[in-house]
Amino acid sequence: MARVVVDVMPKPEILDPQGQAVARALPRLGFSGVADVRQGKHFELEVDDSVDDETLAKIAEGFLANPVIEQWTIRRVDA
Amino acid sequence: MARVVVDVMPKPEILDPQGQAVARALPRLGFSGVADVRQGKHFELEVDDSVDDETLAKIAEGFLANPVIEQWTIRRVDA
Repeated sequence: MARVVVDVMPKPEILDPQGQAVARALPRLGFSGVADVRQGKHFELEVDDSVDDETLAKIAEGFLANPVIEQWTIRRVDA
Repeated sequence: MARVVVDVMPKPEILDPQGQAVARALPRLGFSGVADVRQGKHFELEVDDSVDDETLAKIAEGFLANPVIEQWTIRRVDA
């Protein structure tokens, strides 16, 4: 078994209203110094050792992210 | 400026219907070997160097996560 983390973020040119809402709220709440916030998704997968990187790439592109508006990173982590 | 990543995940004892939906769909779609999927949130913050770890902890706990049902990690990354 291996643990795989896939982080999915809106592409830089895509508006991110959730992140902007947090970024705009923080100064009102007394927290200054945060210039930007962007929000995405974080997936943690438990996969058999038989699952190779190519399969993980297909899973991420096809089912975890929307390639039109999102970019993603895949990394294996020690469980 | 520093980049900070906050990953927010449902606590282990909390059901995660989004992650379960992905995990159950994958075998039907031809991808075997994925035993579990859990879905959370991934935040990327651009912060001034004046923002210390204590402030980041307050921001994460108060505004990025729900401490009742979620756990989170905070890490500074090289921009």
